[in-house]
Amino acid sequence: MLLLHRPRNRSSLLLRLLHHHRTHQHFSTLSGPPPQPLDVPLSQPTYMIWSSNTSLGKTLVSTGLSSSFLFPSTPSFISKKFLYLKPIQTGFPSDSDSRFLFNKLSSFSLRRQPPLSLSLSDSVIYTSVSAAKSVLADKFRAPATEFGSGMYDLNLLEVNENSGRGEAVSQLVCKTLFAWEEAVSPHLAAERESGVVGDSEVLEMLSKCLREGLKSDRERMEVLCVVETAGGVASPGPSGSLQCDLYRPFRLPGILVGDGQLGGISGTISAYESLKLRGYDVIAVVLEDHGLVNEVPLMSYLRNRVPVLVLPPIPQDPSNDLMEWFDESHDIFNSLKDIMLSAYSERIQRLHDMTKKAGEIFWWPFTQHGLVPEETVTVIDSRCGENFSVYKVRDNESITQQFDACASWWTQGPDATLQTELARDMGYTAARFGHVMFPENVYEPALECAELLLDGVGKENRIAFCAGWASRAYFSDNGSTAIEIALKMAFRKFSCDHGILQDFLKNNTVERVIKLKVLALKGSYHGDTLGAMEAQAPSAYTSFLQQPWYTGRGLFLDPPTVFMCNSKWDLSLPEWLHAKIVKLQDMTFGSRDEIFDKSRDKSDLAAIYLSYISQTFLQNPECKGFDPIGALIIEPVIHGAGGMQMIDPLFQRILVNECRNHKIPVIFDEVFTGFWRLGAETTADILGCVPDIACFAKLLTGGVIPLAVTLATYAVFDSFVGDSKLKALLHGHSYSAHAMGCAAAAKSMKWFKDPQTNINIISGQKLLRELWDLELVQQISSHPAVRRVVALGTVCALELQAEGCNSGYGSLYASSLLQKLREDGVYMRPLGNVIYLMCGPCTSPEICRQLLVKLYRRLEDFN
Amino acid sequence: MLLLHRPRNRSSLLLRLLHHHRTHQHFSTLSGPPPQPLDVPLSQPTYMIWSSNTSLGKTLVSTGLSSSFLFPSTPSFISKKFLYLKPIQTGFPSDSDSRFLFNKLSSFSLRRQPPLSLSLSDSVIYTSVSAAKSVLADKFRAPATEFGSGMYDLNLLEVNENSGRGEAVSQLVCKTLFAWEEAVSPHLAAERESGVVGDSEVLEMLSKCLREGLKSDRERMEVLCVVETAGGVASPGPSGSLQCDLYRPFRLPGILVGDGQLGGISGTISAYESLKLRGYDVIAVVLEDHGLVNEVPLMSYLRNRVPVLVLPPIPQDPSNDLMEWFDESHDIFNSLKDIMLSAYSERIQRLHDMTKKAGEIFWWPFTQHGLVPEETVTVIDSRCGENFSVYKVRDNESITQQFDACASWWTQGPDATLQTELARDMGYTAARFGHVMFPENVYEPALECAELLLDGVGKENRIAFCAGWASRAYFSDNGSTAIEIALKMAFRKFSCDHGILQDFLKNNTVERVIKLKVLALKGSYHGDTLGAMEAQAPSAYTSFLQQPWYTGRGLFLDPPTVFMCNSKWDLSLPEWLHAKIVKLQDMTFGSRDEIFDKSRDKSDLAAIYLSYISQTFLQNPECKGFDPIGALIIEPVIHGAGGMQMIDPLFQRILVNECRNHKIPVIFDEVFTGFWRLGAETTADILGCVPDIACFAKLLTGGVIPLAVTLATYAVFDSFVGDSKLKALLHGHSYSAHAMGCAAAAKSMKWFKDPQTNINIISGQKLLRELWDLELVQQISSHPAVRRVVALGTVCALELQAEGCNSGYGSLYASSLLQKLREDGVYMRPLGNVIYLMCGPCTSPEICRQLLVKLYRRLEDFN
Repeated sequence: MLLLHRPRNRSSLLLRLLHHHRTHQHFSTLSGPPPQPLDVPLSQPTYMIWSSNTSLGKTLVSTGLSSSFLFPSTPSFISKKFLYLKPIQTGFPSDSDSRFLFNKLSSFSLRRQPPLSLSLSDSVIYTSVSAAKSVLADKFRAPATEFGSGMYDLNLLEVNENSGRGEAVSQLVCKTLFAWEEAVSPHLAAERESGVVGDSEVLEMLSKCLREGLKSDRERMEVLCVVETAGGVASPGPSGSLQCDLYRPFRLPGILVGDGQLGGISGTISAYESLKLRGYDVIAVVLEDHGLVNEVPLMSYLRNRVPVLVLPPIPQDPSNDLMEWFDESHDIFNSLKDIMLSAYSERIQRLHDMTKKAGEIFWWPFTQHGLVPEETVTVIDSRCGENFSVYKVRDNESITQQFDACASWWTQGPDATLQTELARDMGYTAARFGHVMFPENVYEPALECAELLLDGVGKENRIAFCAGWASRAYFSDNGSTAIEIALKMAFRKFSCDHGILQDFLKNNTVERVIKLKVLALKGSYHGDTLGAMEAQAPSAYTSFLQQPWYTGRGLFLDPPTVFMCNSKWDLSLPEWLHAKIVKLQDMTFGSRDEIFDKSRDKSDLAAIYLSYISQTFLQNPECKGFDPIGALIIEPVIHGAGGMQMIDPLFQRILVNECRNHKIPVIFDEVFTGFWRLGAETTADILGCVPDIACFAKLLTGGVIPLAVTLATYAVFDSFVGDSKLKALLHGHSYSAHAMGCAAAAKSMKWFKDPQTNINIISGQKLLRELWDLELVQQISSHPAVRRVVALGTVCALELQAEGCNSGYGSLYASSLLQKLREDGVYMRPLGNVIYLMCGPCTSPEICRQLLVKLYRRLEDFN
Repeated sequence: MLLLHRPRNRSSLLLRLLHHHRTHQHFSTLSGPPPQPLDVPLSQPTYMIWSSNTSLGKTLVSTGLSSSFLFPSTPSFISKKFLYLKPIQTGFPSDSDSRFLFNKLSSFSLRRQPPLSLSLSDSVIYTSVSAAKSVLADKFRAPATEFGSGMYDLNLLEVNENSGRGEAVSQLVCKTLFAWEEAVSPHLAAERESGVVGDSEVLEMLSKCLREGLKSDRERMEVLCVVETAGGVASPGPSGSLQCDLYRPFRLPGILVGDGQLGGISGTISAYESLKLRGYDVIAVVLEDHGLVNEVPLMSYLRNRVPVLVLPPIPQDPSNDLMEWFDESHDIFNSLKDIMLSAYSERIQRLHDMTKKAGEIFWWPFTQHGLVPEETVTVIDSRCGENFSVYKVRDNESITQQFDACASWWTQGPDATLQTELARDMGYTAARFGHVMFPENVYEPALECAELLLDGVGKENRIAFCAGWASRAYFSDNGSTAIEIALKMAFRKFSCDHGILQDFLKNNTVERVIKLKVLALKGSYHGDTLGAMEAQAPSAYTSFLQQPWYTGRGLFLDPPTVFMCNSKWDLSLPEWLHAKIVKLQDMTFGSRDEIFDKSRDKSDLAAIYLSYISQTFLQNPECKGFDPIGALIIEPVIHGAGGMQMIDPLFQRILVNECRNHKIPVIFDEVFTGFWRLGAETTADILGCVPDIACFAKLLTGGVIPLAVTLATYAVFDSFVGDSKLKALLHGHSYSAHAMGCAAAAKSMKWFKDPQTNINIISGQKLLRELWDLELVQQISSHPAVRRVVALGTVCALELQAEGCNSGYGSLYASSLLQKLREDGVYMRPLGNVIYLMCGPCTSPEICRQLLVKLYRRLEDFN
């Protein structure tokens, strides 16, 4: 029985243009459901069918697999469903891979004795105008009328019900999602037929078809699904994106149909590598036998870890119905099917076990294991750009997307495109260099990285053509080591400038007398190693419980802070200022820009700040009998780990200038704030003054790999130059300036500041455009559950109203709120009762807006 | 004038089998010249011609380039030479790409008016027996006689002298290096024709042809060279190695001939990625026009950074002589040639400038910049396995190989094969994960890495089926941070076990009273951050000049050491032992194994050690009034940075046991010693006792990327578990357990211990076989310039006899010796007057032997 459904009437066909799907969903109000993250069901085995080139037999493999799955050698009483999806088809309707499969399986099922109860369907959802015309002319002999442009919701459905006996009713469901008429690459066909489809439309449709198709309709139904790509692995899809990039967010495991011809070893290996370079798993390679035993070098290349299966030669005669060939290939397809089913079971088993194993063998940093029950552990299957792909067990097992709003400890920058570029660069750099010794050597990634550093964060970028303040780059591994190096640099410079070094070199006895200390701000945090810890004020992090050796070698000032509350920016004064008379106009700001305005340097408040700071120096002279202040260290503008406190930039600027007047070297700890985190490449640009030494890490590499750097002026460097090795800076880590880190940093630095690659760059101003919708931020700042908000650059932080044990770093107060947000696809981490959203320098303001909307919604339910 | 040279006589042909090249050169004596490192000349532009598949027109591109180069549009009075090398040719003699080029250029030169003075030659060096037979039958109608197997030195040469007028005499030199008869993949042809050629033979021959061919015979001669590959980029060469791997040590820049057909975008991109994944630079893509505008997506993919050139459609008619096509393509080939020439100039310019720029903007760690003149800076162009490829200016500019005998600060492990595997894994992991947040999360690379750690270095592997001592893995970034974490762990455990923690939690006042200290050995070194520094005895590294905050929070014991001198292993006693009577049989060892023998535990010396250590504890009780010893920290067996001192393992074993008796946690600093550095996966296996906490870094990732881990017992972990976050270990770095580091570690751990991939593994014993030739080591230890030798695992260290300012860390005593060794292709770095050779766990003993030979030779000239 063959049924052919056509759209109910022509006019409805005309109306159902895909176009309406294409407009982005905007949330002009805070009501209505937020968009759901893209889910990929894991409930049933699902595989991509890739190929190293066109015409190597992807559809034959899909057909063979469906036959092997639906017609098992031993009769089965469990019904089965084979779901075949062809997202992109060109040459349609004369070519239709889903139709081919549908037809072949129809023939197979008729041949079977006893015949099998099988329901078959083939449907085509969207086609281009010209393809639609062809179909209609073809099927209904309708005249070719004018359709306009775009893609049509054709929804052509063909059904074949084959009611056999004895066995359970099985199903074959074939679907073509988007089809074009010309038999060329999809991007060309789409362009020529004015039927361009965006990547997100393909993904949404594919996700929908998977969700619908993988539901087992019966209680016990086995399902196997394949998604067949078009052309080769890196053939462009309809938007021009390469297919291996287009499908990447789902990262479905794949079968690679290789090439058994002369030259086919190379093509197969290269295609495999392109898939690996995008983070895909390939579970088997299958190729046609051309008598060249290509499988032998392939197996050797794959080190026998990925099975290679060989299909008999495919008859070339077009009249051959291939029945014999499929019979011959039956065992191979059976093996392939078994490989697919068992790889699926293994994957699911592993995903299941991971939380338990993690809890048993990991020792997570900054984590009280006693407070992490197994079910709260997140299994991250992959990341794509700003999103984690997370394994979700609840409801239906699936891989779901969560926006990494903690930016994985503030490191993340890449969007999906940059991630792919970085991955290729990482492969290239590992292959070219691995790691090579740095001292006394030079190699391209380190040199390029240093050049870009000195030309970027090493100068104040607001002043055009200004020579950089920084003259040397000292590489290390993380923020903490970069800080220890900075301290050593600063102390040496101070010792030189204040005669201490000379004394030491003369009589070699100074060391137990002079106890250099740092000047730092309360609440700042500079890393976890002991030296960096010594530069911070006593806190929960520094108690005997954590740091038995901590003494706190600093003078710690309590700084004034600024934040938004009830839609207004306010100044919050520390205790030492309470007695002073501060004018009201100095205490509130009409906009965030006002806070950074240089005209404040002339305000009464500036004079108050200055007199306080001068007094500090009077009480701590640089002379040798005392413990002199040997360095100033600050996190410019925002204290990150200290609870996302925004420090009054006026105060920091005056402090920097005063230290310079006293010949005290100034260190900027830009580990958190650097590389666009706060909206400028270096926060020195926002603060309006430069340091002598600055430390960078985290976003330096775009967030893929650890690397840190300490930049210094020539004068600082010069205080280590001499004729003895013992005068040099004897501090270094094995992987100093490692090639991969430097290559990632060079790529990221260029990427983030280039308006061609980063849509958020305001070219003239060297600043990021505003990412956080001001209106929404104000609404949040006025919410009763919120005490204060700081939104700047890629950061939007808020402190929740909390008292007593609910406040502070140890508090678990925000947990329930953040748990809800994870359900909305937003992965946040708290700093006690302070929570924050953090995006990358390239994240679109629309995505940031959606994050704010989700956050606001959940705040409404909170408390 | 056409000349055809044939080998002088048949019998000589028969004799000149390649076979004698194939035997490795062994140095049974210390005389005779050492083998020279493989050089690639840089004096002239040289490019590989790659292709994404077979039959895409590589030879047409080579031909077009040669024509464009030799026949410039404007007459030139500078003579030119085009060198065309075809290392691997199958289907010979009916197919010969070098012959094709030779013939075409002969025709072109005849067509030119006025005719050009051009000397053309085509030669074929080695062929298989059957190809040789074919040639001889063909050319000389000789009967097919029996040749035996192997490759024949055919040295067929065809010459065409075309004496035109007016212009300078130019040359075309075409060479086929190795040829087989069957028109299949080289590995198949080589196998079927019993003419297998090893990779090193291909490389040596290619290097020879390049060196000879790129010499400009006249004073002013421009040369351009192309090396045309066979088939696709990843087609196997004659040994079965993929060509992109085979040619990798030279890393010549390349032109990629892409595919303009349907599916060709994908194939071209994948081929490009395979080349990038092996560290190659591709400077242009060129492809035939098939009307599909494949160049547009290719340019978009390449972000316009690599030019894409399009050739007109190639006539398919075999009778077409292509003259018209070459005329049409002339401009394209001219552009391609210009791209090649200017890319070459840019590369050379950059290589020239790098040393100067490095000296201006780098701040190298552990380096006195005042002592590094520009000409001593090494430009590392790449690394391949254990070798650096170094830019050499002197004599002829070239890229030369230097064995990385400092293992790039002791990090290196991979051979060339593992490096390629790691590069692919790095690309995959960056694409799949980038970096994702670790705490409270789990993802595959981190979990697999932790599993392998606990199952590998986390247990004593000499005892079969032993449960691991380690139960938790704490990740960080480098050895120094791993040590700081270990110290925090140990002190917490100690505080728990000795009631200090309980006191602290009760009255919160203990912190200023208890000053925990470490027990450590003099000369040990645990990293450069302050906390790690505090655990080492005062030294040049810890003075006020370097570490203004250093106090030395330890009790530092002077340990007995062992070393080889005059071919014998001796014990060297510290001062505190001088008064004791030690038996002579306890002072010398017949072999290195005796030193580690557990029977020594019962020796008199053991009793002496024990009594000394016990006394130490008596003087430093754990009670609270004192500053108790809260941890023991040792580098097991060898002190690395402290000058490659081998500590008597008996002393360390007794120390560990005694600390355990006193409930003092034991830390093994295996940052240097771990992962086969000393011949076992963990040095605990050699030492014969396990720690409570152990730190690993350096070789952990195989040496490509920074990662460190601190392993701990469950009891240690448990002392941080509770119901408050503040009791947790609050130490972490942004990239904790970053995915790429964990993936590299997992791959390397598996690779090094698997006898399938590491030929040095003695399977039963879980040890590396002896890498350093005992006889040679003994000879070196008897050399008058040598004070002592320590050879163990991958390390062979020696202390040079030196007095006064020539000894110690600051000394430059060894510089001249090491400079000479660099000329021999061995890159070493000194620790003052201590020098060492260090290889990877997979390095063959033959290579180690060659290193020892070179070292010995240079020692002879030293002093």
